[in-house]
Amino acid sequence: MKTRVLSGLIMLPLLIIVIFNGWVLYAGCLAISLMACYEFFRGFRELDIKPSYPIAVCSIVALYLLGMLKELAEKDGDLATSWMGLFRAEQWTYLWIFATILACLLYLFSIEKRKIDDATVTITGVFYVGFFCYLIGELALSEMNILVWLVIITAFGTDICAYFAGVTMGKHKLCPKISPKKTWEGAIGGILGSVILSGIFGLIFAKPLLIHCLIIGFLASIVSMFGDLTASIFKRKMGIKDYGNLIPGHGGILDRFDSVLFTGPVIYFYASLIIGAAFAEGYWIEF
Amino acid sequence: MKTRVLSGLIMLPLLIIVIFNGWVLYAGCLAISLMACYEFFRGFRELDIKPSYPIAVCSIVALYLLGMLKELAEKDGDLATSWMGLFRAEQWTYLWIFATILACLLYLFSIEKRKIDDATVTITGVFYVGFFCYLIGELALSEMNILVWLVIITAFGTDICAYFAGVTMGKHKLCPKISPKKTWEGAIGGILGSVILSGIFGLIFAKPLLIHCLIIGFLASIVSMFGDLTASIFKRKMGIKDYGNLIPGHGGILDRFDSVLFTGPVIYFYASLIIGAAFAEGYWIEF
Repeated sequence: MKTRVLSGLIMLPLLIIVIFNGWVLYAGCLAISLMACYEFFRGFRELDIKPSYPIAVCSIVALYLLGMLKELAEKDGDLATSWMGLFRAEQWTYLWIFATILACLLYLFSIEKRKIDDATVTITGVFYVGFFCYLIGELALSEMNILVWLVIITAFGTDICAYFAGVTMGKHKLCPKISPKKTWEGAIGGILGSVILSGIFGLIFAKPLLIHCLIIGFLASIVSMFGDLTASIFKRKMGIKDYGNLIPGHGGILDRFDSVLFTGPVIYFYASLIIGAAFAEGYWIEF
Repeated sequence: MKTRVLSGLIMLPLLIIVIFNGWVLYAGCLAISLMACYEFFRGFRELDIKPSYPIAVCSIVALYLLGMLKELAEKDGDLATSWMGLFRAEQWTYLWIFATILACLLYLFSIEKRKIDDATVTITGVFYVGFFCYLIGELALSEMNILVWLVIITAFGTDICAYFAGVTMGKHKLCPKISPKKTWEGAIGGILGSVILSGIFGLIFAKPLLIHCLIIGFLASIVSMFGDLTASIFKRKMGIKDYGNLIPGHGGILDRFDSVLFTGPVIYFYASLIIGAAFAEGYWIEF
């Protein structure tokens, strides 16, 4: 119990980073991307697969740098018409994808030392861990960055409510082969909890978006569980229990953020596409 | 010899597709992406890895559809302000990356039937084969689509010139562990051949871009060889000689296009970034 409380304290900096939001959170996402990717790759050591962490670091840092320059270019017309404007916005993303894949393929050129897995896992780590987390950073820089709170609320809310619902009422196994303790009752409790918590958040902090908060609470809760199970699958295949022990009693960064990696992008796209559409149609209300 | 001549005839449709350029070539690139990805995945059967071809097909088709809609939206202002305009251009690419990675991760949920490799190789196939080839399609739709010819000329020119230079003068091995027959003399011959052929092309068809054609001939020739070697590495690890036997005497689509997959993106980025910059600065000359 004491360890758990202490670990809770370790989560405090995270809270402060989310309160600051914007660029501070963007930098926080970069740090989490890099640490989580490190843990992800370390897990593969057990399978004798050695992905390239240096390539992943370069690729992830380049992604965040590009995102930063893009944001600055949007705000500053001069920059947009200078070198950033040489490409259309999506071409920078194309270049990033190409350079990342190319680097991973060239990594195989020391053919005797490398296995194909070393490259394919590097690619997967960059996209699954690095890119998914980057989208939370993008959300933090957007006009709707208040929704970053829902990324955390839906992921942790689902987790905690599912735990208590499962412990008290759990009977029917959800997917015993992936995660033996999870039950349908827990899953339903998690979704309900996430919807209620997101609704409370909406009522207090973003009243005009209340209906969207409820929908997000529902959708993100489901993907949150998929995020959790995805991490479980990887760990099961690697034969490890936790990705790390950075946070005593909670495992590594990636154990804590496995759900966040999935709720983040879904809320980012929901905010850009659905709420952004309402904004474009003039249904926007200041809050 | 007879097989070789007949196979040459099979390459004729390709020539016609490149002559048509534009949308016809775009559709051709989609077909090649799908066929090459199929061959790539089939090669992994030898290693008992079963990537998901259906996921790859959905992802690659979605990529080309998005590219098509983006192109139409750019030409037609109405479409741009309607649903396509909900997202900024690069956000569609983000959504495509996210959906692709998510689908590959969910593929692992049949945990007993799948290995991690099944997902990571699916991801790699979509990006390496599908996405790289897609960039040639993007080039075909751009204002500088005449440069598509250089994608072919540098890739095949390097290959053929390197072969003859290697046969006649080859002494010093280039990388015996990856591809035992390749020599430094061949590589230099290939580069020279590519530069000369690109120069001739520039002189006849794109005189104002001659200097760029020569630079492209040099750069693309080098990456062309990396493309060839990358495919060799995969085949070596898979323990196969050719990806397929679609074109008798030439192997499969991917054996023929391994270099094109690398010259395509490099020329696409060169055209967008370097020549596009000259265009923006007013150094553009009609041709």
